[in-house]
Order: sequence, then structure tokens, then C-alpha cells
Amino acid sequence: MNASAMAESTFKTQGLSERTLIEMIRARARRRFDGLRLGIGDDCAIIRPRQGEEIVVTTDFSLEDVHFRRDWHTPESVGHRCLARGLSDLAAMGARPVAAFLSMAMPQELLAARRGKSWVERFLDGFIALAKRFDVPLAGGDTARAAERACFDVVLLGAVKRGHAWLRSGAKAGDGIYVTGTLGGAAAELMALERSPQRFAGLTKAEGEHPHVFPEPRLDVAKKLAALGLVRAAIDISDGLSTDLAHLCEESGVAAEVDSSAISVDVRAMLAERAGWAASAMKLALHGGENYELLFTAAAEARVPQRIAGVEVRRIGRMVKRSRGARMKLRDEDGRVTELEACGWEHFREQLRRGQLNSGWLRSGR
Amino acid sequence: MNASAMAESTFKTQGLSERTLIEMIRARARRRFDGLRLGIGDDCAIIRPRQGEEIVVTTDFSLEDVHFRRDWHTPESVGHRCLARGLSDLAAMGARPVAAFLSMAMPQELLAARRGKSWVERFLDGFIALAKRFDVPLAGGDTARAAERACFDVVLLGAVKRGHAWLRSGAKAGDGIYVTGTLGGAAAELMALERSPQRFAGLTKAEGEHPHVFPEPRLDVAKKLAALGLVRAAIDISDGLSTDLAHLCEESGVAAEVDSSAISVDVRAMLAERAGWAASAMKLALHGGENYELLFTAAAEARVPQRIAGVEVRRIGRMVKRSRGARMKLRDEDGRVTELEACGWEHFREQLRRGQLNSGWLRSGR
Repeated sequence: MNASAMAESTFKTQGLSERTLIEMIRARARRRFDGLRLGIGDDCAIIRPRQGEEIVVTTDFSLEDVHFRRDWHTPESVGHRCLARGLSDLAAMGARPVAAFLSMAMPQELLAARRGKSWVERFLDGFIALAKRFDVPLAGGDTARAAERACFDVVLLGAVKRGHAWLRSGAKAGDGIYVTGTLGGAAAELMALERSPQRFAGLTKAEGEHPHVFPEPRLDVAKKLAALGLVRAAIDISDGLSTDLAHLCEESGVAAEVDSSAISVDVRAMLAERAGWAASAMKLALHGGENYELLFTAAAEARVPQRIAGVEVRRIGRMVKRSRGARMKLRDEDGRVTELEACGWEHFREQLRRGQLNSGWLRSGR
Repeated sequence: MNASAMAESTFKTQGLSERTLIEMIRARARRRFDGLRLGIGDDCAIIRPRQGEEIVVTTDFSLEDVHFRRDWHTPESVGHRCLARGLSDLAAMGARPVAAFLSMAMPQELLAARRGKSWVERFLDGFIALAKRFDVPLAGGDTARAAERACFDVVLLGAVKRGHAWLRSGAKAGDGIYVTGTLGGAAAELMALERSPQRFAGLTKAEGEHPHVFPEPRLDVAKKLAALGLVRAAIDISDGLSTDLAHLCEESGVAAEVDSSAISVDVRAMLAERAGWAASAMKLALHGGENYELLFTAAAEARVPQRIAGVEVRRIGRMVKRSRGARMKLRDEDGRVTELEACGWEHFREQLRRGQLNSGWLRSGR
């Protein structure tokens, strides 16, 4: 159900009743949007694609103690991050956002008022602030009570010109490999957050650069790139460059060579290296996830701007034919070539869950 | 993310590894379907609507100990029910199903093999059996580990001719009110399930009539009704006739008069009354939820068949103008008119959660 669930659910607390919560969501979501014919208030929402458009769909769980921790992340950050993940997936398809759906299972305490606002109101502040920036209507969802840990599921619908979605499978040998923004910053900020959550407790708005706390989905870059018509294959770097590049290689049936000197390493990653939190900033850049930058390929002769929508775009290597050897190779500054292994972000997440980022593989120099 | 999440998640167990699970899902989901251009395997799935179609979207949480209990429901029943809820919402819009998305957060034990099959494999058996019956491809989702209780979120996309979706707001004074199937059966079966879960432990397939354990979404009825072009407003009876009729009245700005003698009371509800589980079978029919029948209105002069796609269709009353008095009235067999109150299904659910159906409001004769 859509509004039906949003209208008739169970839980009430000392603070917000669920009905109040739903009313609050409906009131905030009431704006009319192009493409959304019917939002919250019926069995389903109705999306009206423009002629010649396809609809793309992505879903993302955000679970307490897996994707966020209440003692580390502000509610606004959790709301922002929930939505940013799906928006980044839309960007990776070259799609414009059309509608968001938010399903929330929460323990009662998150609805109780705390110094004025409940946790969930602050969560919605973060979610809706990001939605407004990219003109995405909240079109529906579901609510339920959870026993202990909050669970959010966010669904994003986007639209893209028929046949023009960027797939993971479109890369060809010879293509240049491009990456937006800087890498390793989100992983490094997460390490800083783990060490001193109190330093981040005041971060309630997406101001300044906070690649982990308030990641910036690259929708503006994607829009301009789509207009240029240069992209052959794309993916977002949610699982880390090495893992997501491996996906691109796998789905396209090609191999990759990356020049480490071309990678734009985030200053936070350098600071993490200096502080001894990570074996090297480069490892954070290669393997750290949740940066939500775009990784894409374009033909060798394509003229890809070095800056798009204010974001740096670097050519970090090239796609090559598959051979017997390693699927991905890394060329360092001295020209030495080594195998680039896909070291997934999931390692991080497991450690985040356990609160063991300190002793993780990044420090052990893997 | 879509396949990305399905491909790179964390958890492994003594039984199924998550990768094996994902591979199993991908293998089962691989069939090509009209309207689904790209399923599991990229940042997003791609839906290609036919020309002149709109896309409808519904999301439904299914949470352990809120919507199901592992000691009551077989895994196949849980999988079936997860999907049936959304399919019923599509039916209530007059839409045909296009794609399903399944997000699963599960504790490890659900992936461990038990006498051959893990819980989650049996869950998928139930989910996919229903999906196949209605030709719905599983197009994506997400996976994560939950601490204790399983959490599923199912998203359904459907397609409907532009401007032809049945809304809750389309009813007019004078319309006849129609209901498919029998009422009260699901609530009564839930009561039986609570009392003797062992009697239901063998129910692993959607065979025979089991309105609670294996509810039947009315997609076939909806399809034929849509072809007839008679429906003015519709909703599914997921929250009980009284509650869902109240929604229809509210959204359409009308009132309703229901003839209790016209309601087709399920035999299970009669048995529940006889057993003393419920004050009356009629109360179960009026207020019991999760029956997933369709409630719709058609113009007074419309000729609605009494049987559609093998399902009984009853005219149970009429929409009338709003006046100062009660929004909904119930006329009993002796012609006495009383107010019909919306007594939501959520009462049930709260009691299910607490395992207190015995002492609930249905018995107390409310």
C-alpha cells in the first residue's frame, strides 16, 4: 500500500502519533511535480513518463547499525544519506529523478520529542532538504513499528530517454575511464566520525563538504554528461573504485588499466594516512566506498571536459581487451604495474557494524 | 542500488552464502518480460511502459512479529503474502503488474539450511510461485543482515492506460458499492492459525482457499473489470471493509449506505462465531482485514456481472450525498439503520504482535 499504509498504521508514542507523522509527511510532500500524477493518498502513486521515456528504479535499505549508527550520525545525516544512495544510482544511469518512496520501520523512541523535535522529524528534515534540492517529490511509502533498530527502505524512480540509460555493460576496449570528484574522502570521514562522533554532532545541514555525512549525488554532472552524449558505460562508486570498476569490467567483458597518478585523492584520505588510521591514502581512494562519485567510460577520442557542473572529472585509465592475466591493473607513478584487486567496501561496513574500524584491513596495509 | 547491492553484500552463514542467495535469485528472475528492459544486474532496473501508459507504484513492508510470525506462518506463506499485498494494490488501481522489487534484511539463521532448504529459500519459493502465476518479474532489490527479526520491503510497479487508473476519489453519490469474494475469511483464518499453528504447518503451497495464509490478489477480476470500463473508484480491502470504505468516502467526498444482508460472509467467519472466537461473523466481515478483495463503485445504472473471472461480485450498498450525520450507515436485515464505524484492522495487528488475539476486541463484541 502507499498512502493506505501511511494513513492507517499502528503506533503511537508519548511524542508524535503516527497519524501526526503521516500528516506531516503528506503536508511536506504535497507539492506538484512534473511526472508525478498522484502522490500519497491512494493504493498506489501514479507516475506519468514523458513520451519516449523509460523508467528506472532503484531500492536501498538503510539499516541501523549496518548503514548508520544513532550514536555517530545525526538524524539529518541519516535522512540525507538514505536518499543520496538512490539518487546516486539514478545519476549512474544518466536519469533524472521522478519520485521517491520512503518506508520506515522505527522503534517508538524515535517518535518521541527530544528538545523540541523527535528523531524522525529531524530525519525527515535531512531527507526532504535533499529531495527539494533535486526536485524529487516524496510520493509514498510505508510505516511500521520496529522492535529495536530502525530500518528504512528508499525507492527511487527516474526517467531517461528510451534506450539512453547508461549501463554497466556498455564499455569497450579502448575507452577512457573517468571519475568525478575526489576519492577516499568518505571513507576517511567515516574513520574520523568513529573516532570523535562528538565533532560531528552539530552537522545537521548539508553545508560544506562532508563526503560521508552529507554525500553529494552527482545528478548535475550526470545531466550535463547526458547532454554531451559521450558516456558509454557508468556506475556509481558506492562500493569503492576497485569493486565498482570490477563490476563494469565484468558486465562489459573487458579489462581495465588504471594510472594511480591520475587519481584525485581526497585531502581527508591524506590526513587519515598521516594520522595512522589507514596504511595509505591511495588505498582509501582505491577501495573506500560510499563516495557516490561517478565512474564512466567514453570512447578514446571523446573530448570529456575536465570540469562538469563545478566538479572535477579525471581520466584515470583505459579499458583494454580481456586477456588471461589480471582483470584490472594498476600502474603506479614509477610505471610499475601490479594487479588491482577488488577490495569491497563491505569490509568496512562489517567493521563499522562491529565498531572495529581501528583494527581493520586498511591499517593492516592490505 | 539494485543488483549492485544484490551482488556485493556482506553476510555469510553456515548454510547459504549471500552470494549463493543472490545467484539463486538472479537465476530464478532471469526470464524476459514485456515491459522490463533490464532486471537485476545494474544500478537500476529499467521499465519500458507502452505508449500511452502510466506507471503505478506501491511499497509494502512485511516485518517479523508485526505482519507475520515465524512460529505461525510457513516461509512459503510469508513469501506469498509479502507479494500479494502489493499485487492487490495494483489490482485496486486497475493496473497490470510490470515488475517486483524485493528488499530483504534477515538474521543469519534464515540462511542456514534446515532439512535441505533454508528458510529464505522456502520464502523465495512462495514469493516466486505467486510472481510466476501473474507473470511478474523480480527486477531487483536489496539485501542486508538484520540483528534478530526479518524485514522485507516489496515494491510493485504496474502499468495502466493513461488517465484510466481507478482512484479512491472517483466515487459519486448514487454509485453502487461492490465487493468481490467473501469477507471475514482472512481474519477468521488468522484466529485459527493463532490457536493451532501446527494445523497450518503443512501449508507450503497456494492450493485450496486460504484467505489469510495464501491470499489471492484479484488481478484477474481487475483486468476484466477494466475491460468493462464500469469502475469509478476502487480500493482493496486490506484494512477491513469498514476502514477502506471510509477511505473511499473520505477521498470522494461522499457517504455510504451498506446493506448487511448483501454481504457475503465467509464460512470461516461463521465457524469462528460458532467457536466463540468472535462476537459475530458479521463483525469479522465488516472489520476484518487482509482479505485483499476489491471494493469498488459503479454508476447506479451500470450492469456489473455477478461473477467475474470466477469470483462472486456483490452489490452491497450505495454511495449517497454527504450530510451532517454518520459518514457510513449499515442497514440490517430488519431494515434498522445504525452507524457503521471504521474499526481498523490495525487493532488485529497489534494483538497479533502481542499474541493476544484471544482477548481482543472482536470477542468483546465491539
